[in-house]
Amino acid sequence: MPLRTITLLGATGSVGRSVRDVVAENPQRLAIGTVVGGRDAEALARVAVETGARFAALADATAGDALKRALAGSGIESGAGRSAVLEAVARPADIVVSAISGAAGLEATFAALLPGRTIALANKESLVCAGEAVMARAAAAGARMLPLDSEHNALFQVLGHEPLDSIRSMTLTASGGPFRTWSAEAIANAGPEQALRHPNYAMGAKITVDSASLMNKGLEVIEARFLFGLEPAQLDVLVHPQQVVHGLVTFRDGSVSAGMAVPDMRVAAAHCLGIDGRLDAPPARFLDLASGEPLTFERPDLQRFPALGLALAALAEGGAKPAILNAVNEMAVAAFLAGRIRFPGIAALVEAVCAQDFGAARAPQDVAEALAVDHDARQRAALLLSRAPFAAT
Amino acid sequence: MPLRTITLLGATGSVGRSVRDVVAENPQRLAIGTVVGGRDAEALARVAVETGARFAALADATAGDALKRALAGSGIESGAGRSAVLEAVARPADIVVSAISGAAGLEATFAALLPGRTIALANKESLVCAGEAVMARAAAAGARMLPLDSEHNALFQVLGHEPLDSIRSMTLTASGGPFRTWSAEAIANAGPEQALRHPNYAMGAKITVDSASLMNKGLEVIEARFLFGLEPAQLDVLVHPQQVVHGLVTFRDGSVSAGMAVPDMRVAAAHCLGIDGRLDAPPARFLDLASGEPLTFERPDLQRFPALGLALAALAEGGAKPAILNAVNEMAVAAFLAGRIRFPGIAALVEAVCAQDFGAARAPQDVAEALAVDHDARQRAALLLSRAPFAAT
Repeated sequence: MPLRTITLLGATGSVGRSVRDVVAENPQRLAIGTVVGGRDAEALARVAVETGARFAALADATAGDALKRALAGSGIESGAGRSAVLEAVARPADIVVSAISGAAGLEATFAALLPGRTIALANKESLVCAGEAVMARAAAAGARMLPLDSEHNALFQVLGHEPLDSIRSMTLTASGGPFRTWSAEAIANAGPEQALRHPNYAMGAKITVDSASLMNKGLEVIEARFLFGLEPAQLDVLVHPQQVVHGLVTFRDGSVSAGMAVPDMRVAAAHCLGIDGRLDAPPARFLDLASGEPLTFERPDLQRFPALGLALAALAEGGAKPAILNAVNEMAVAAFLAGRIRFPGIAALVEAVCAQDFGAARAPQDVAEALAVDHDARQRAALLLSRAPFAAT
Repeated sequence: MPLRTITLLGATGSVGRSVRDVVAENPQRLAIGTVVGGRDAEALARVAVETGARFAALADATAGDALKRALAGSGIESGAGRSAVLEAVARPADIVVSAISGAAGLEATFAALLPGRTIALANKESLVCAGEAVMARAAAAGARMLPLDSEHNALFQVLGHEPLDSIRSMTLTASGGPFRTWSAEAIANAGPEQALRHPNYAMGAKITVDSASLMNKGLEVIEARFLFGLEPAQLDVLVHPQQVVHGLVTFRDGSVSAGMAVPDMRVAAAHCLGIDGRLDAPPARFLDLASGEPLTFERPDLQRFPALGLALAALAEGGAKPAILNAVNEMAVAAFLAGRIRFPGIAALVEAVCAQDFGAARAPQDVAEALAVDHDARQRAALLLSRAPFAAT
């Protein structure tokens, strides 16, 4: 197997960490050539040195000097700001891992869709905000799109070469988050500390809060719609607290293929990075069903978790609505984490902005359109956040 | 989709019934042209008329007249005996369903492996007794082999186009049978009535007793070894009482693909019969995980269920040993059902004959060799059965 060179966007985040672990386990097969981070120069410099990257770029243009200082003597080139990120993306690579969190990852993901490239996509916002445009560009460029989220990766694997018209439905599973068994009243009084206690995964704050509200699963359903080309009504969600079954494809004849693995992001990362020949996982990363808990499944409760219902409604409505939903949710989660709104305020803010008239609601056709929608929705969210009833009591 | 013509071997058995149900649900896609049964002329005649078959053959040569009488006026041709069965197999068909129970199905299955044919295999003895020969002949003839057992069908589906060297292991699930939670002493005292109470499936008596001893799963592991070309050590068994997960493929990178469905043989039958375009199942045949019991998994207990261990040992030994194991087990189960031996006598008889020296132990290279091994093993079993300690107390 030839050595594959990787560009890692979001190198300092939790997905980036999983990817680095898998690369470190397979030095004969994989090498990281380029790393991109957000704001933390020290952290990115450490990652660049540890991985042996040749180029490091930070999105934050003001941190360029700090990055240069941190990399002094290492021989690693660096840059900062939008143009440095795009330069990093343009450098030669076999696989680009797109793991920047949030709408901030959209432009870099779009730019990474070059001929012959394999894109391992963890930035779900690329598909939520501009799914049609991203998939069209990947197809036109001849770039191969692989899902790096555990759920989509599981679905991708079990789907195999089955034609779309064989499929009755796809199911994404959700842990149910820390509030799965909580009453609506208890959820209403939960603070950031409670929302950040994910039962199975250690992830960034934004996605962990999204897991608590089930908005994360809603965004993943939207992502799946574009990745796999199904109709919105063919996608559903099951709460599965053990997070051993990540996704299920139900075929028209009643057969069901389920993608399973221990709840560890490195499994999906290893699949993407070993797409041309499976990598070997260490023994501890294999599922042992006989020693695990029973596997349970329940339907999500849209009363206690209205964010999921809002996401499904945005998907059904289509056009720019998923991008609006995503933008407002990012604002709302930040406001919740900052103590400015209570937990139910997240869904309430999303619902309020989504209910507004945005005029022409066509799906964004490129990054600029998606970012314009994003910007507009954030302004509307900020306006509402400055008023009652969204201010924290 | 063009109409596919089916030859149904084992038309009056439980698998045959499932196949007939699926064909009846899809009259635009499927038609049964030829049916083959064992001894029951009345039953086969009813099936032939019901399915609209053109030709019906019984294996029992003495029942030919009864079959002709039962079909009088129907316009359906018929025959009886070995040559009639082989004539049935040779008739034009797109798909041959091989669902004759036991070693009796071996010759017909072998004869069915013709160019361009699709064989839906439920006769596991074909692979247990002559796996190398059957797979080699299928490959040489250009016949497509599809597994119709739920477990192998599930594995086949989730395996997709993955190369063999991607696979770490394959797991077949077992219900655990009616004695799953019984003590060794209680199992020792169980009679046919208890052994025939399968928790999930209504099947023939032989396979139901094999499910109680776990010999059925052992035979299925041997079958899987030849179907999929894995090493014996890559195959294992998990007891899974809900029988919702039928088989699991674990890949080298930690990903696991599980084939699931309601415990209903018609799902696997529909997959095989719809191999060129999935058939639609009725709504009741779709899995509803949210309303089902939790899914549990446990390792099989080879102390209480020694038959499984004997089968795995025969697989590891290879050569003619699986054919010997199968032949003795058929004799032992018949003796148990006839009240001649107790339940633990089944495994004891198998173990005793398998331990004998059979001289050259090479794998049967054709049907004649496989039947010779089968005949020899049965004679040895009969001899032991005529003596203590195998006679019932």
